[in-house]
Amino acid sequence: MLLNKLIRLPVFFCVKNVCRHMGHKPDFTMNNYNVERGYYNYPQEQHLLFFKQLLGERVVTDLSDLEKYNVDWFLTYRGSSSVVLRPKSTEEVSQILEYCNKNKLAVCPQGGNTSVVGGSVPVFDEIILSTELMDDIIEIDPTAGTVICQAGCILENLNNRLSEEGLIAPVDLGAKGSCHIGGNVATNAGGKRLLRYGNLHGNVLGLEVVKANGEIIDSLATLKKNNTGFHIKNLFIGSEGTLGLITKVALLCPTLPKSVNVAFLGCQNYERVLQTLKKSKEDLGEILSAFEVMDADSIDLLERETHIKSPIGKYPFYVLIETSGSNEAHDGEKVSQFLDSSLETDLVVNGTVTNEPTKVEAIWSIREKIPDGIRQCGYSYSYDVTLPLTSFFQIVDDTKTHFGKQADVVCGFGHLGDGNLHLIVTAHSYDKQFKESLEAFVIKKTLDLRGSISAEHGMGFQKAKYLNLVNSKGPFNMMKELKRIMDPNRILNPYKVFP
Amino acid sequence: MLLNKLIRLPVFFCVKNVCRHMGHKPDFTMNNYNVERGYYNYPQEQHLLFFKQLLGERVVTDLSDLEKYNVDWFLTYRGSSSVVLRPKSTEEVSQILEYCNKNKLAVCPQGGNTSVVGGSVPVFDEIILSTELMDDIIEIDPTAGTVICQAGCILENLNNRLSEEGLIAPVDLGAKGSCHIGGNVATNAGGKRLLRYGNLHGNVLGLEVVKANGEIIDSLATLKKNNTGFHIKNLFIGSEGTLGLITKVALLCPTLPKSVNVAFLGCQNYERVLQTLKKSKEDLGEILSAFEVMDADSIDLLERETHIKSPIGKYPFYVLIETSGSNEAHDGEKVSQFLDSSLETDLVVNGTVTNEPTKVEAIWSIREKIPDGIRQCGYSYSYDVTLPLTSFFQIVDDTKTHFGKQADVVCGFGHLGDGNLHLIVTAHSYDKQFKESLEAFVIKKTLDLRGSISAEHGMGFQKAKYLNLVNSKGPFNMMKELKRIMDPNRILNPYKVFP
Repeated sequence: MLLNKLIRLPVFFCVKNVCRHMGHKPDFTMNNYNVERGYYNYPQEQHLLFFKQLLGERVVTDLSDLEKYNVDWFLTYRGSSSVVLRPKSTEEVSQILEYCNKNKLAVCPQGGNTSVVGGSVPVFDEIILSTELMDDIIEIDPTAGTVICQAGCILENLNNRLSEEGLIAPVDLGAKGSCHIGGNVATNAGGKRLLRYGNLHGNVLGLEVVKANGEIIDSLATLKKNNTGFHIKNLFIGSEGTLGLITKVALLCPTLPKSVNVAFLGCQNYERVLQTLKKSKEDLGEILSAFEVMDADSIDLLERETHIKSPIGKYPFYVLIETSGSNEAHDGEKVSQFLDSSLETDLVVNGTVTNEPTKVEAIWSIREKIPDGIRQCGYSYSYDVTLPLTSFFQIVDDTKTHFGKQADVVCGFGHLGDGNLHLIVTAHSYDKQFKESLEAFVIKKTLDLRGSISAEHGMGFQKAKYLNLVNSKGPFNMMKELKRIMDPNRILNPYKVFP
Repeated sequence: MLLNKLIRLPVFFCVKNVCRHMGHKPDFTMNNYNVERGYYNYPQEQHLLFFKQLLGERVVTDLSDLEKYNVDWFLTYRGSSSVVLRPKSTEEVSQILEYCNKNKLAVCPQGGNTSVVGGSVPVFDEIILSTELMDDIIEIDPTAGTVICQAGCILENLNNRLSEEGLIAPVDLGAKGSCHIGGNVATNAGGKRLLRYGNLHGNVLGLEVVKANGEIIDSLATLKKNNTGFHIKNLFIGSEGTLGLITKVALLCPTLPKSVNVAFLGCQNYERVLQTLKKSKEDLGEILSAFEVMDADSIDLLERETHIKSPIGKYPFYVLIETSGSNEAHDGEKVSQFLDSSLETDLVVNGTVTNEPTKVEAIWSIREKIPDGIRQCGYSYSYDVTLPLTSFFQIVDDTKTHFGKQADVVCGFGHLGDGNLHLIVTAHSYDKQFKESLEAFVIKKTLDLRGSISAEHGMGFQKAKYLNLVNSKGPFNMMKELKRIMDPNRILNPYKVFP
């Protein structure tokens, strides 16, 4: 039965910038967690002198300026670094690392500081090496569909520049307004375009990286096919700044789609969501570019904490589908046919669809602003997991049941097309015991389901202690061996990835 | 002016299996090239005894049986191995390598033996470890679009099995009837689908690999997003069997297209070919799945040496375009519009287009049987390079001019969409001096154009001596270091990749 006729509606909701709830500051990570400082030297006056000689004004030591580099975006982790270095060139990065390596000074590489696993902030007093001034777009080749840029380019700026040349970045994230492309590559960031364009291992054509000892590794080709020896660059993708610091990136960029449609749909249960996914793959085929899902609690939280509202009323599950194609008429016809028959068969009970750019953006902001809503809720615990589609939301229900009133909100949303769920639990204040039992619960459930405990966020600080647990002996030993030969003094991003 | 009206023609040409021109055998590689045997032990009776206890009948020592394992597909390289091992399981591979490592016996891993750079045949008396009996397809998940299989699955068989489940393999090559998926991954094979589905770094979800010491590295996940530590599996992709032997592969598989169109077109010059490529990207967008180019000499050679004929007469350049999509009507409309306006604007002067499966296959065989034709010509020298699109065929003309009558045929064809040219030079007999000056010429030209001297074929034996030349110091040193820690006795595929 048709409950509502789906039409191209105007989207009635407003998007405001939510202001960061800075009332609370997290405790220092070193106090909150049972972690021992490594045998590094403490940054001292003579070190500062070297850095100031090299970078001049681009050395931050003022306490109030340091705060934003020491605290993570989700206000969960806090370091106590006393110095931030802001190099502009690969050569400066090389000199910094060579010096730090010789002087056994620990370094925390930082891009846009949008890690949600504590990967981009120091744990103790590591020197923060920020890529924020390394934001040159060096070369775009519109015919070949390639770009070379510095690691500190903000993803959204890069994408805007690419779109002027008829291209798009192969990766897109909610954090695009802040995150750096170097950080995206270092963490093998996934995001919403992965479904269509694949992961960064396939889209990074070349990298320039500085090793811990300051040596510059130049693998910065833009060739689509290049098999001339081991694929060294892939070693750095997803290594989270622990094997080297990425300074330049060469990317393969898809053609800017001529036609984009976005639909926001309501479904009565998860079974229907799954059927809608299957149907969208069949009906939309090669133009399907995103399939996102949100549960009712995610949208309720968003509506309560921000001024963004669901444009279609309340449903147990919401689906956001995006298509990107080259022919507006063909794409529109595919989308209409898909939506009509989804409504007719009750897979979907209500929805809105648009191809107007501002409305497309507004619909995307429903999905992308959920993390902003979460930040307003006091403390939040965020888990990024890959799960089999059949048990995708089981973990959300199980968490609710298991923890009852200990949690304020337990909700789930994510990239269903890639099997990637973001499980969120909010609480009024930080409770170490609760956090630990929650984490143990989520990790056990995920592993029981043969999922991944880190889909797209990486290990960072949060999951480093599980590295041994989630990798069998062979790969784990190889990781240790690689770290040993690449960074024998372990100065790069300590306390992250490795336990 | 319209020279010929392009219509959906029946394709009038016949495809016969060309029989292998086995009249000549290449000389032994060790005699032809200036290469010194490594300090390995010689396989002896007690080693054979061990292998026979482990594998029983699956140890090949008969001289006539050994021949096909010792000689490469292009009849260019020839080893003198006295033993071929045919394990069925990972455990057997593990025991073989552990034994060979302890006894310092060199090992040549071999899949379908379709390497064109001498990567899959021994140089001296290496023990050949063939994956030909490791051909189990272990698990296909049609909803997630994934497969797990053993490394020895022949690509075409795997693809046929996947198509029964509504999927296709993300890689496709001319050698698909012989090549093994393990070899494809080990060489990061490109092929014609790369344009659409990206390279194997993006499509390999997991690997199981046996290290030189017999240790099994299990990274065999099928998760689309999984960031739990370094991406160990990517180290083996493109390492050509020198870091470990791939025993199982997990792949991401695209949906089987519902509609496939193939057009075979004639162009008057390369400038028009390039314009046709640009136009095809714009008009065909997301359904474009291959863009291949062949010059007149390639097709002349094919017609002379096989029974395959061009279905459209003779032109300076031929283009093969494939589209793969989900909607027959939409795809047909896109293709028709593209072809009509390409004819109207004289980009293309004649052509044939079809969506009938047998005719699609017949058109593809024009492109894919060129190597068969080459094999009939006596000796051939094959170079696989990536070049900037603007100077793609320059190297073919330059080679013709430079070598004049020293060469019988100089022709070029390849994956223009990926900038990947196969340059072929044929001659009646092997001439060491000619070969050396030809190779030096091609490599210099390619590097002068900032191209890659190995696009999709790898370094193998042929290009190993250039590893140092084509990689800057940093990556080169890292390659040596990785080899040292992974295979300290250098038993795996010696004389390949490394000089």
